[in-house]
Amino acid sequence: MSSQTYHAIAHRKLKTLQSLIPKNWLLDPLPDPLPLDVRSLVSKSTVLTPDEFSITSSHDVTSLSQLIHSRALTSEAVTTAFCKRAAIAQQLTNCLSEVFFLPAIERAHALDVEYKRTGKTRGPLHGIPISLKDTFNIKGYDSSIGMASLAANPAKENATLVDILLEQGAVLYCKTNVSQTLMALDSHNHLFGRVMNPRNRRVTAGGSSGGEGALLGMRGSVLGIGTDIGGSVRIPAMCNGLYSIKPSSQRIPFIGQEIGQLPGIDRLGLQASAGLMATSVRDCELFLKTIADANPWEKDPNVAFGSWDGQGGIGKKALFGVMRADGITTPLSPVAKVLDETVEALRKAGLEVVEINAPAFKKYHSLANSFFGIGGNNHTFDILERIGEPLIPWLDTRLRRRKPADLMQLSDLHVRKSAFEKEMLEIWRDENGRMIDALICPVAPHPVPEIDRWNGVGYTSAFVVLDYPAGTLPVRDVSNDDLKDELPESEVLGGWDSRNRDLWHPSISDRSVYLNTKLSVQVVAPRLQERRLYQAMALIDEILHGANSEIRPSIQSRGTVA
Amino acid sequence: MSSQTYHAIAHRKLKTLQSLIPKNWLLDPLPDPLPLDVRSLVSKSTVLTPDEFSITSSHDVTSLSQLIHSRALTSEAVTTAFCKRAAIAQQLTNCLSEVFFLPAIERAHALDVEYKRTGKTRGPLHGIPISLKDTFNIKGYDSSIGMASLAANPAKENATLVDILLEQGAVLYCKTNVSQTLMALDSHNHLFGRVMNPRNRRVTAGGSSGGEGALLGMRGSVLGIGTDIGGSVRIPAMCNGLYSIKPSSQRIPFIGQEIGQLPGIDRLGLQASAGLMATSVRDCELFLKTIADANPWEKDPNVAFGSWDGQGGIGKKALFGVMRADGITTPLSPVAKVLDETVEALRKAGLEVVEINAPAFKKYHSLANSFFGIGGNNHTFDILERIGEPLIPWLDTRLRRRKPADLMQLSDLHVRKSAFEKEMLEIWRDENGRMIDALICPVAPHPVPEIDRWNGVGYTSAFVVLDYPAGTLPVRDVSNDDLKDELPESEVLGGWDSRNRDLWHPSISDRSVYLNTKLSVQVVAPRLQERRLYQAMALIDEILHGANSEIRPSIQSRGTVA
Repeated sequence: MSSQTYHAIAHRKLKTLQSLIPKNWLLDPLPDPLPLDVRSLVSKSTVLTPDEFSITSSHDVTSLSQLIHSRALTSEAVTTAFCKRAAIAQQLTNCLSEVFFLPAIERAHALDVEYKRTGKTRGPLHGIPISLKDTFNIKGYDSSIGMASLAANPAKENATLVDILLEQGAVLYCKTNVSQTLMALDSHNHLFGRVMNPRNRRVTAGGSSGGEGALLGMRGSVLGIGTDIGGSVRIPAMCNGLYSIKPSSQRIPFIGQEIGQLPGIDRLGLQASAGLMATSVRDCELFLKTIADANPWEKDPNVAFGSWDGQGGIGKKALFGVMRADGITTPLSPVAKVLDETVEALRKAGLEVVEINAPAFKKYHSLANSFFGIGGNNHTFDILERIGEPLIPWLDTRLRRRKPADLMQLSDLHVRKSAFEKEMLEIWRDENGRMIDALICPVAPHPVPEIDRWNGVGYTSAFVVLDYPAGTLPVRDVSNDDLKDELPESEVLGGWDSRNRDLWHPSISDRSVYLNTKLSVQVVAPRLQERRLYQAMALIDEILHGANSEIRPSIQSRGTVA
Repeated sequence: MSSQTYHAIAHRKLKTLQSLIPKNWLLDPLPDPLPLDVRSLVSKSTVLTPDEFSITSSHDVTSLSQLIHSRALTSEAVTTAFCKRAAIAQQLTNCLSEVFFLPAIERAHALDVEYKRTGKTRGPLHGIPISLKDTFNIKGYDSSIGMASLAANPAKENATLVDILLEQGAVLYCKTNVSQTLMALDSHNHLFGRVMNPRNRRVTAGGSSGGEGALLGMRGSVLGIGTDIGGSVRIPAMCNGLYSIKPSSQRIPFIGQEIGQLPGIDRLGLQASAGLMATSVRDCELFLKTIADANPWEKDPNVAFGSWDGQGGIGKKALFGVMRADGITTPLSPVAKVLDETVEALRKAGLEVVEINAPAFKKYHSLANSFFGIGGNNHTFDILERIGEPLIPWLDTRLRRRKPADLMQLSDLHVRKSAFEKEMLEIWRDENGRMIDALICPVAPHPVPEIDRWNGVGYTSAFVVLDYPAGTLPVRDVSNDDLKDELPESEVLGGWDSRNRDLWHPSISDRSVYLNTKLSVQVVAPRLQERRLYQAMALIDEILHGANSEIRPSIQSRGTVA
């Protein structure tokens, strides 16, 4: 077929998306040019009523749920507010892929009626709008994952997680934009364009769940579901200053998604996880506990049996480990500093933090890359070539058809992976044999970089290889002072490290792009111990942000953007 | 190399094994011919003192542990008794592959001294002799798994489970004989010969953990560790009238074994489980709880996090399901009857048992067979051909080199497996939506058959494909009355079913071989819910066997074989 085909499909798809946004929700005219930080445009527009602005600005899921339970708010009001704010977010950041605002408001109304009639909510998610990455099948809507040939092919049934969310009373109102093929770290594709970072249009919004990140960054959602096999939840969470958790792969139902890969190949290589992004750490628990309480192992055979209480916990006097570098890429100064500040804050609060040096850690790098390549990308190219759809420029220089791995190669990879997993168990004990409750490390070796310049996924993909639950926690913004810091003094470790330094090199990169971006840390726990991870994150968050640690980033009143 | 080589190795290996049995532990002369039931020879010999006979005949791990804790028995006395009885078992059934009796007795003595000095035992396994299948590496000893070219190659370190057992105070004293390559259901090989069934030399002792089964059948061990990927724990348990549990694959540390397969290939196909055989149902809990309490996930990265209490349980009023047939092979009359008797006993005890008809169930059959073949047996043939070792006759007609599966075929297999797993989740609800606590079904479609005539592994391998924990529970012996039963009246379902009927066809099989063999049922729980399985088994056992349900098969006094 001609390359015209993909253009036509993309044009139709975007037009449909735009047509589903009610006219009175449009920012008309859009400022031209847009400011670097588009978030302020929300308060300047009149699309949201003051109440709607407050509902979407000042709450997390926990507080919205309380207000719905106490009848101070209806789900219809909450859902309408988030639909409108999501529509604004879409106009400013291209963060959406599918919208179903009107059915969502209808469902919210029905849930309100049900609650009024029965006096019972369906659970903590009753009436709460939740957004999902485009990968999740929702009956009647596309899962095009940024590929034109997958568009116009509505899903025949819901993903398992979608069914569980609905059972628990959630209101689904949109799906979010991703990187073409899910294999890029900027969420850019020919169907919907590029997701822009709401706080700083010069830097990336991350990927592959970048639309989800930008939507939450705009507070067009307070709870977003993504997927993560290299960092695809954690990276956009960092880019948008959000809390996130990528659980172990057997924790949250994953089935019923379009992932653009040969079906079944995930069982031969690395397993992706469904994870979440949130605006408060307590919402991470609310989500994970709600899913665990729904007995997800009865619906997805790959989910491990285990109640929320059975997912571990930290000790009364938690012992933290800090892993400052992965041995492949040396963190740039702001990343090293924010990690150090976190460690110092914990120590000041009376907690012990020990240095973890695991020379074996760097082995994840070639393992992750080898696993990502086992299919030789042939399924992806087959999909694209059906209608002559080209790769986006970033992928075009990186993705090639290759010979798929054979059984000997696959077996050998798993031998190496198993050996690595075994070696890494050592990081959970300090040199005196005490158990480390959780590990703190960078999310990436650099701050949120310019568009299309994310340098590798090492610090996040390592914990996919290990299948450890890992989360991100926003710490503080890059300051003007940070920009004066020098490049790392240590020896350059290799190509990845060299390219990483370019991001801070004064003659190569304009460091001012980093202003108004959030620095985050990553927190990690052993496999299948999501509650242990959450408790560690909650403790760190409390220490870093004190009583204000919930509902972040918070916009308390109209016109004040945090 | 010449075929002489394997002969020479086998000759040396067997001679070494024999030389490690002290002369005064030999049954000299062995009766010729041996009786069909060799168990009675134990009481007739003078190798065991009356105390040793009593220790080995009248206890399970739980009671031995209590006696060691209360200082009524020393570990040295217990270990010596089991070493001697294992030596007798070896002479009568060829059940051993490696022996380390003297180091075991030394360790037992040291544990006694430690207990006397500290007043503390290391745990419930303190001083308890435990036997393991030959696959488990024990430093300094071979893991030859019945293949001459793997002999004379002592392990450099312990399997993870071995280390945990030692930490928990267990005494290891022998490893047990298996089928050549582990891929046969009779435990027969050129190194050690064929494992014989102690209660009936005409029928099979099962495999691949057949030595373990026969050793426990002789009460030369009260706790045996095996592995199961098709039924290799459950089949020998049934053949020897034992309790057994094959847990889900992520429950018990598996690493550190010789399994005769391409390293890493297990990660691409079906995952084997380490499991146990025992002489009482309560010992199953003792073992599984002891391992869970040892935090095995800190030692084997493939083990799922989860305490014993976090492994599920049955409801106050348990609801059982019964699945009477797999749709591939219709159970022969004694099997159908004993299942029915079990169901009736449960109903009489006031429990509800619902019929489970899962037409999808039979899909496991082609899935299991396809998965078993993914490597094309090339690694096995490579090992054998190094020294020109021929296959045992049973394998020789079945095993061929084939082309290994490629990535597309492997992916497709996993797609089918995932779909099957999903469909099978339905069996855990009855038609009114109530949760089924546990499932009862046959272990095999036939009673314990003659040597080399086990017909397929369907009823056991299904729960490897599904990764469900599954156990066996001995019910009663085949009776003379049973022998009068007719062949199934239903239509022949295919080749497997036809061969199965041959086992009961009066003109093809002499049914009298089944006398003095035990009929068992299989009990199954959902994935990673081993405690739920155990509780279901304990309840069924209590109902079937009442107050005498523990310490079975029990030999209460010299000369009386149960």
